[in-house]
Amino acid sequence: MNKKNYVFITGAGSGLGKELAIQFAKKNYSVALIGRDSSKLENVRNEYGFENSICISADVSKYDDVERAFNIANEWGGEPYITINCAGEGVFGEVGGFTEKQIKDVLSANLIGTIQVSQRAYSLMKGKKGFIVNVMSTAAKVGRKMESIYCAAKWGANGFTESLKLEAKGTPLRIMSVFPGGMNTEFWSDTCGLNPDTSKFMNPAKVATTIINNILEEDGIYVAELLINRI
Amino acid sequence: MNKKNYVFITGAGSGLGKELAIQFAKKNYSVALIGRDSSKLENVRNEYGFENSICISADVSKYDDVERAFNIANEWGGEPYITINCAGEGVFGEVGGFTEKQIKDVLSANLIGTIQVSQRAYSLMKGKKGFIVNVMSTAAKVGRKMESIYCAAKWGANGFTESLKLEAKGTPLRIMSVFPGGMNTEFWSDTCGLNPDTSKFMNPAKVATTIINNILEEDGIYVAELLINRI
Repeated sequence: MNKKNYVFITGAGSGLGKELAIQFAKKNYSVALIGRDSSKLENVRNEYGFENSICISADVSKYDDVERAFNIANEWGGEPYITINCAGEGVFGEVGGFTEKQIKDVLSANLIGTIQVSQRAYSLMKGKKGFIVNVMSTAAKVGRKMESIYCAAKWGANGFTESLKLEAKGTPLRIMSVFPGGMNTEFWSDTCGLNPDTSKFMNPAKVATTIINNILEEDGIYVAELLINRI
Repeated sequence: MNKKNYVFITGAGSGLGKELAIQFAKKNYSVALIGRDSSKLENVRNEYGFENSICISADVSKYDDVERAFNIANEWGGEPYITINCAGEGVFGEVGGFTEKQIKDVLSANLIGTIQVSQRAYSLMKGKKGFIVNVMSTAAKVGRKMESIYCAAKWGANGFTESLKLEAKGTPLRIMSVFPGGMNTEFWSDTCGLNPDTSKFMNPAKVATTIINNILEEDGIYVAELLINRI
């Protein structure tokens, strides 16, 4: 086990982030689990018996929290080999009905969080071999009724990530965009406005496997965009 | 002159917003000029002798300012016939070097402002004949080195606008996206990080004319997207 090869994962307390953490641990990667709720992070770690891991409670929408989380992780294992932005939250409803707080919260969690984590990761990982993986949503690719501010946040993260790809071009650091469709996770139970039937949504464990396989593929090529839909 | 046919323009104190205000006034539209700096708005109005207009000082990134501006405009002339989101600002630099304030400011001015103004306009104009015109930038369409958070904001505004189009579909209200390339305006003098030679950038008056012609075109069709580049 090589702590130098650790994976820094935001939103690791539940959903896709949790599945990514579990599957990277099973592949003998060290994992830094980042999330707002430390008890959720500890539960993930305890349930699956991670050998080499650290849980760091942080809210990625807060600049200082992001700095602190990377400082703690850096002390523990140096710079990450892989940083995955997986934290996110949704608020849904018609244009005209969003409160100031809903707009700020959705943009902070999904867009400002991704920018702040990517930016700090990039400073640490720049010029080295590694991956920054920004998990967005298929909502980053199309407009959707009832999802206008969620789409705004995800389209924004996509535009940021495309710019970052240009800045990293020609260096060993790879920037990857992931656009998963709806998954059967807690995301939907926390979400006001929409109550979709999630029983046919994708299994986050299968989505995590697909992402990891595409990150770790070593063929002199790299997957820059990955869009994953249910059949 | 019909106050019912008024145009609500943000960022009307300078640049493209100012040109749009002047040209609409010349076509005998009433104009509500919105901007942060009331002296700039008054200067535009005095310089060009607008007959039927109102200047409203407001920062569109502030929710309460947006509410107040629409309330004042509504008292003055009812709901707008055309609402144009033209306010914006840029901050440029490499990923890794942006401060917390820079990230928040760029997203607030360009993205949160557009969402808040569009949302309030939509509530007032929903189901009626009219236009909401969101002026973004060609940076909403591609990633760019040194422009990552500006791209994030503009891509976000584009995703929001695409969602709004779906919500307004089938109603008489038309939602239009405008993507201008670089213009020879004060935008660049206020901008840290980049100092482009703007002498060959587009004349904002010509861009304004092109936008207005496409808004007012009446042929049973409407222009949903307009991308304007220099030759």
